[in-house]
Amino acid sequence: MLKRYFPILDWAPGYSRHMLTDDLVAAVIVTIMLIPQSLAYALLAGLPAEVGLYASIAPLVVYAVFGTSRTLAVGPVAVASLMTAAAAGELAAQGSPEYQTAAILLAFLSGLMLAGMGLLRLGFLANFLSHPVISGFITASGLIIAASQLKHILGVEAQGHNLYELLLSLGAHLGQVNLPTLAIGVSATAFLFWARSRLMPLMARVGIAGKPAAVIARAAPVFAVAATTAAAWGWDLAARGVAIVGEVPQGLPALVVPAFDAGLWAQIAIPALLISIVGYVETISVAQTLAAKRRQRIDPDQELIALGGANVASAVSGGFPVTGGFARSVVNFDAGAQTPAAGAYTAAGIAMATLFLTPLLYFLPKATLAATIMVAVLSLVDLGALRRTWDYSKTDFAAMAATILVTLGFGVELGIVAGVGLSVVLHLYRTSTPHVAVVGQVPGTEHFRNIERHEVVTVPEVYSVRVDESLYFPNARFLEDLINDAVADDPRIRHVVLMCPAVNLIDASALESLEAINARLRDAGVTLHLSEVKGPVMDRLGRSHFLDELTGQVFLTQFDALAALAPEVTRATYAADRRTAAAGM
Amino acid sequence: MLKRYFPILDWAPGYSRHMLTDDLVAAVIVTIMLIPQSLAYALLAGLPAEVGLYASIAPLVVYAVFGTSRTLAVGPVAVASLMTAAAAGELAAQGSPEYQTAAILLAFLSGLMLAGMGLLRLGFLANFLSHPVISGFITASGLIIAASQLKHILGVEAQGHNLYELLLSLGAHLGQVNLPTLAIGVSATAFLFWARSRLMPLMARVGIAGKPAAVIARAAPVFAVAATTAAAWGWDLAARGVAIVGEVPQGLPALVVPAFDAGLWAQIAIPALLISIVGYVETISVAQTLAAKRRQRIDPDQELIALGGANVASAVSGGFPVTGGFARSVVNFDAGAQTPAAGAYTAAGIAMATLFLTPLLYFLPKATLAATIMVAVLSLVDLGALRRTWDYSKTDFAAMAATILVTLGFGVELGIVAGVGLSVVLHLYRTSTPHVAVVGQVPGTEHFRNIERHEVVTVPEVYSVRVDESLYFPNARFLEDLINDAVADDPRIRHVVLMCPAVNLIDASALESLEAINARLRDAGVTLHLSEVKGPVMDRLGRSHFLDELTGQVFLTQFDALAALAPEVTRATYAADRRTAAAGM
Repeated sequence: MLKRYFPILDWAPGYSRHMLTDDLVAAVIVTIMLIPQSLAYALLAGLPAEVGLYASIAPLVVYAVFGTSRTLAVGPVAVASLMTAAAAGELAAQGSPEYQTAAILLAFLSGLMLAGMGLLRLGFLANFLSHPVISGFITASGLIIAASQLKHILGVEAQGHNLYELLLSLGAHLGQVNLPTLAIGVSATAFLFWARSRLMPLMARVGIAGKPAAVIARAAPVFAVAATTAAAWGWDLAARGVAIVGEVPQGLPALVVPAFDAGLWAQIAIPALLISIVGYVETISVAQTLAAKRRQRIDPDQELIALGGANVASAVSGGFPVTGGFARSVVNFDAGAQTPAAGAYTAAGIAMATLFLTPLLYFLPKATLAATIMVAVLSLVDLGALRRTWDYSKTDFAAMAATILVTLGFGVELGIVAGVGLSVVLHLYRTSTPHVAVVGQVPGTEHFRNIERHEVVTVPEVYSVRVDESLYFPNARFLEDLINDAVADDPRIRHVVLMCPAVNLIDASALESLEAINARLRDAGVTLHLSEVKGPVMDRLGRSHFLDELTGQVFLTQFDALAALAPEVTRATYAADRRTAAAGM
Repeated sequence: MLKRYFPILDWAPGYSRHMLTDDLVAAVIVTIMLIPQSLAYALLAGLPAEVGLYASIAPLVVYAVFGTSRTLAVGPVAVASLMTAAAAGELAAQGSPEYQTAAILLAFLSGLMLAGMGLLRLGFLANFLSHPVISGFITASGLIIAASQLKHILGVEAQGHNLYELLLSLGAHLGQVNLPTLAIGVSATAFLFWARSRLMPLMARVGIAGKPAAVIARAAPVFAVAATTAAAWGWDLAARGVAIVGEVPQGLPALVVPAFDAGLWAQIAIPALLISIVGYVETISVAQTLAAKRRQRIDPDQELIALGGANVASAVSGGFPVTGGFARSVVNFDAGAQTPAAGAYTAAGIAMATLFLTPLLYFLPKATLAATIMVAVLSLVDLGALRRTWDYSKTDFAAMAATILVTLGFGVELGIVAGVGLSVVLHLYRTSTPHVAVVGQVPGTEHFRNIERHEVVTVPEVYSVRVDESLYFPNARFLEDLINDAVADDPRIRHVVLMCPAVNLIDASALESLEAINARLRDAGVTLHLSEVKGPVMDRLGRSHFLDELTGQVFLTQFDALAALAPEVTRATYAADRRTAAAGM
């Protein structure tokens, strides 16, 4: 029980020197990668650079205690940072203390929500986000983020909540491009793209491979940061209009629990929920992908608690919303991390950086951070998924395209809400029309099959229909319509037999529909029968009055039903071609 | 095509003298019943009495043109009137012109929404309202309505948006009870209850039966209206504090299209949508119940258009939201209405009353109308349903109880929203955990069955699992968890076979999950296979890259899969007990 809520108890007692070495190596690599990322995502979220560092310390320690993934690395990520900027931007101006308070509160509320969902075992709620919706949402977010970083690379002022506003604003300011900024931004971006695709092959050619090569490749952003910071310092580029990070407070954050403010909390609740769900979906899929490679288990509900705890820890230590990041978790995994302790060591590394390295960041150009973001998010944009989804399913394509368009046109919050709404509506639409088959008897057998696919014998007085789905409220009305129309269309029908071999559940709505169908058929002089009802479904029906009121019977098999309702035809069909059918088998 | 959108073309050409007689008789009876009801529901909605009459003219004519039900009677009903009062009350004070404008606009918007949903064939959206939710909502509404009418019967001032506020306010004003009002209210209520249960048996005993008896019984509210109006006039009860209807404008309403006001329309959109959906669900179930008795068809999407048209007509002629009413439709049906023309004749009857009878309503006590409402709505309250649903399904009971409590405690709008939300969440929860069975081979056969229910043979290297549900986004993650955990728990597993005989659909989310499962299993050195995939599902999979990347194969049958993956055990199982098994069959 204790182990379930504290997975650390699973691995800490058997922690070996060998694991320590592996975890420390992984922690060093992830720390090097995380420093520029933390600063960059804070910039993306519209927050001071140090907030990014704060969000990369306490959350990692808390995740190490509560997380069930051995290798997941939490921290600031691109999409959550964009969503933070959108939500906080609705409440206050970027740069104001209220803006920062809102961002911290987002992490706090989202953490409480995640932990609450975990304790109530509500992980299934993440299913509301279908894959086309999350994929479309991430693609659109990537495009918006890339567009939002262009201003830092061009060195102009521009803003907007959606792609259109951003591009319009950029266009209006194109005349004010700052050339030194542009030079830094473009060269950093080019270098990072080059490092991402060409550096590893190059090193392999000169004989560097394995872990050292991976460390060097992952450290490319650090090289970019160092080189451009040196350039900005040496040539005093700030005086020539290059935006730099400036003073970053040295030292660890103070721990503060956000004050309760009913009005502010209510305003922030919906964005916090959206960040929670999007962050959780990302986290769980990264965690599962990595765990499966080593045949380890993930507990999705415990992951909610762990991610919730990490966000509360982030908020309490002055950070903003965090999520399990894909790239950094893969790096952690590849670098050989064995336990979540690697995360705690990474936290220690970031804490050291916060204590001692921040003065070095004074001259860091914002354009370099923007380049880091650009390169990271463009890998999120997957327009090919549109084509693949179109080929596979038009409905799923519609959901994906709508999510992308709404996100690009109206911002991330409306985008995700529209996507979720559409997923639910499409799901309801699909389940509201279950597969049904009118069935007839296969000559020479006791089997009943779809009349549209098989040569079968039917009796005009008996309407036999098989429902290949549980009966619950989304399809309850469909069943009413189906039987109503069948009986209205064919005045010869005297009996309706509902064949239920695939019905695993009849909920209260469907029961009410069955009662209505039974009563209506009775008024029309038609009896209703059931056949092949599963045991648990029958038990449940026995607890209602339905079986007492049923005008017909419940038959064990469809053959029994037809043998009772139309004995002559049924027995003749069974006998007549029996020899032929048997011979043909 | 034209007939689909104008069902009147179906019946009008064959309209006979015999039908005319039947329809006229029914129209007279419904008109008698509808006059006091129209006035009463206008009172309940917080509107002037004449608005109730207006809502019972044009909508009936429009429904006659567009409706597919031969016997449905539309007009003001209790629940929609309560919802109108709640929505309009949030925008303006009862009695103000703004309040009346809001009520009219509710009908207009709700009409446009319904018609729009009908044209887009979105009738399935009504499935969002599960039966326990609608039943709980109507019960709670009935209780609130009854409580809200107590003030008219006691002759005191009281108000509130939920049951608690109403009862509190009533309690605070109990000292101001007006005795003449109380006498009228209590005696009218007692008379109506008596007439409802005892009048028919009494008439039967004195030899009055059939249609005349039905007319007399249905006219009981008219007697109450006439008697109490005469009393109020004769004894000048208005001077003694009895609230009376007062001056009702004579003549037909002017036709006015509501002006467009973006702000007001936006405020009213959600309540209008809720009224639409609740009204539609009521309408369609009444229509289907009656149609089935005569084996007639209802087109649910066309009913949306007809009800939408009726509401637009109501708004344009100064009325408020209308719905297909249960009691009056049954009366119409029982009285022998043959076609929707009966509704048009009823409209003519109400129009005549509006033209000539309104002066007679001057002295009508409001307490009498309140008594009419009380008697009508208490038949909606079905607390027994709570018990029945509890016995049948705890989940459905939870949805019903939550809807009742939220409606009573926080008003109708939150009540219906909470109910719909809960239904969707419960549905998602149910579909997120489909039924799955780990299967093994039945000795002596090629059949594979659930290992928990049958004596079967399994092979440790092969994990065979059957999913009894389509694979779509609500359960996609479940499948990932299931296979992930199985492979993590049993290191002997080398092959996973997914048996898909019940899978009718694999959506894009599930495809993505299958791809993830395939990739993860590959990384863990396990191959993934499918078996018994249905034709259409296979066709669709062929349009993706999944089959190219699949590490294993797609087998026609589960037996083929096992015969290929573990040939010795499988063939031995097939052969070993074959004779025994065959003998036992």
